[in-house]
Amino acid sequence: MTMNTDETGEDDGFAEVVTLGKDAPLRLSSGETLSPFNVAYKCWGKLNKTKSNAILVCHALTGDQYARGKNPITGKEGWWPKVIGPGLPIDTDKYFVICPNVLGSCSGSSGPKEINPKTGEPYGLDFPVITVADMVSAQVRLVDYLQIEKLFSVVGGSMGGMQVMHWAVNHRNRVKTAICIASTWRHSAQNIAFHEVGRQAIMADPNWYEGRYFEKKDNRPHAGLSVARMAAHITYMSEKSLTSKFGRNLQDREKLTFGFDADFQIESYLRYQGISFVDRFDANSYLYITRAMDYYDISVEFGGSLTAAFEGTPVKFCLMSFTSDWLYPTSESKEIVRALNAVGAQVSFVEIDMDKGHDSFLLDCPDMFNIISGFLEAEDDFSERDRS
Amino acid sequence: MTMNTDETGEDDGFAEVVTLGKDAPLRLSSGETLSPFNVAYKCWGKLNKTKSNAILVCHALTGDQYARGKNPITGKEGWWPKVIGPGLPIDTDKYFVICPNVLGSCSGSSGPKEINPKTGEPYGLDFPVITVADMVSAQVRLVDYLQIEKLFSVVGGSMGGMQVMHWAVNHRNRVKTAICIASTWRHSAQNIAFHEVGRQAIMADPNWYEGRYFEKKDNRPHAGLSVARMAAHITYMSEKSLTSKFGRNLQDREKLTFGFDADFQIESYLRYQGISFVDRFDANSYLYITRAMDYYDISVEFGGSLTAAFEGTPVKFCLMSFTSDWLYPTSESKEIVRALNAVGAQVSFVEIDMDKGHDSFLLDCPDMFNIISGFLEAEDDFSERDRS
Repeated sequence: MTMNTDETGEDDGFAEVVTLGKDAPLRLSSGETLSPFNVAYKCWGKLNKTKSNAILVCHALTGDQYARGKNPITGKEGWWPKVIGPGLPIDTDKYFVICPNVLGSCSGSSGPKEINPKTGEPYGLDFPVITVADMVSAQVRLVDYLQIEKLFSVVGGSMGGMQVMHWAVNHRNRVKTAICIASTWRHSAQNIAFHEVGRQAIMADPNWYEGRYFEKKDNRPHAGLSVARMAAHITYMSEKSLTSKFGRNLQDREKLTFGFDADFQIESYLRYQGISFVDRFDANSYLYITRAMDYYDISVEFGGSLTAAFEGTPVKFCLMSFTSDWLYPTSESKEIVRALNAVGAQVSFVEIDMDKGHDSFLLDCPDMFNIISGFLEAEDDFSERDRS
Repeated sequence: MTMNTDETGEDDGFAEVVTLGKDAPLRLSSGETLSPFNVAYKCWGKLNKTKSNAILVCHALTGDQYARGKNPITGKEGWWPKVIGPGLPIDTDKYFVICPNVLGSCSGSSGPKEINPKTGEPYGLDFPVITVADMVSAQVRLVDYLQIEKLFSVVGGSMGGMQVMHWAVNHRNRVKTAICIASTWRHSAQNIAFHEVGRQAIMADPNWYEGRYFEKKDNRPHAGLSVARMAAHITYMSEKSLTSKFGRNLQDREKLTFGFDADFQIESYLRYQGISFVDRFDANSYLYITRAMDYYDISVEFGGSLTAAFEGTPVKFCLMSFTSDWLYPTSESKEIVRALNAVGAQVSFVEIDMDKGHDSFLLDCPDMFNIISGFLEAEDDFSERDRS
């Protein structure tokens, strides 16, 4: 296992890619199988003797295993630096934290960018279409590999929250607690619509080459992927935060230029979001992961009944939503809470008043930090001995 | 003037293209001029002797002069068939109704698709960038040409409402009443953001050729324009209407296909919206008109003060918004109403409870119909003699 340390020397986690499923193929929702497959992951903290202090952190659409410390691909700080670490809400002095890259993504886990062991060339669209259930199936294999019988908690926001819900519903005996933030129990028509715009933008880019752009020397569907990211990015922010951050302010100019350059700061900002995204993300992965999210409906295996999905659950739930999140609004978290209440499950729910939109869960949000740490502490009954 | 009659024989309006500004160039907001320029328009009803019964109807982003009757370009019914006509809210038995195609559009008025008289070839990006103010300036010239001193009313929804507001603020002595529906007084950062996504989608299409696609035989930036339309279309509908209309229903299939085809009805619907749009709309016009909307801020000439914009206005206003419109939400109409109240102007405002989103103004909305007809009737003081 490789030790990674960031520039501050703070990150004592290790990064690893493990090959799994050689003997036992991973059966996917589509009926196809993956064998073998890779899971890239990163860990922080120490697993205690009884292996009862493991927390699985699940990332969102464009996230990766680098939740904390320097991301070696982007050179930037990880995506949850104020949540995971010594003394932080997910306290690495107490917990053993595992963050895997999801199946279908592009940071080392098997996905369309990786080499298909059967052909020796990148999968491209030969990679099977996966679901959130399949992402979780791969994580179950990773947890098996780490010889952890039961996770103390599974935690995630947005698509990370979808994985949390799938763990809690479909692997209920392997999860003690579940923290689901700014998420939902099924993708709505509007959610699917925005993703479809992004996919069409990518597939309309002639440099996409039906997903086989890796055969071309320099051409990548960057224009399409950039437009997809721009459209999605709008949905991650609230109207109010866009107004307070940008309003109608002009970008490095005194007056309108009467052209199609980025006159407004919001245009310049969005273009930057698009352009910088293509350097770190694979266009085919974007297709696969958005598809997985659109397919997500935790109730579908239970005849469309959320209540049935939770019947008799031993898992203790903590849900959070944000007032300004219009992508996965509070009403959707409340539907989960109502179903959990209906079956007498233990659930705490807080709608956090924050005006930054869906992305609030990635930002500096003391309320969220306090709720995570409070919930984990309350459920944490490890003896001091176990912690050694 | 050409008489047009639709298949039912109902449409007794005439369609016309008039060339204006030969001697007096149209000075644009950018400082550039247009001379000459064309305005395509359609009229219904009869102008009375005192010329006091004229109503100007202003269309939205992708609208045109064919508000009523069969649109000869699409072969479909006009965009406001239940609003304009004999016995309808804008009653063509009483009023003389004029609907011009806006400058920059593509249904006959001067715009990037039309021939530049100076070069003999299409303008493309040589067409000057225009504003809502410029659209209205061209309409003022049309009204002059029709020898109408004062309009009884100016009416429009969405971008049509922006033109209404500009008429009322900047040509206050030529307008008696103004009906502004589902609109705003300035484009917000989020509004600009969605438009910028659309423009980037078009300009990223290699078939756009820097706007000179008209030089190519078959290539048109249809893929980019289609993506732009798809992104915009989501903003025209409410989350609730998407859910009730489509939900997670599958399209002509029993189960998920685990591919990138349109599995869901919402995907199929959006793709259709995109594909059908490119047959009727010019990609460059889409750039120009979205730009004009983004530049729109009725307060900017008044030091950012809406109140100052309305100070001493003689115009009588009627505003409507829709509860489910998140593109131009009620709060923005209320800001206009507050400013009008502050200067003691006459204004009636109704927020209509309708769950169809922004596009409600184009749909079957009896409340809106009643408010339009009631407001017009109350302000209509033409004598019977005048009507002959």
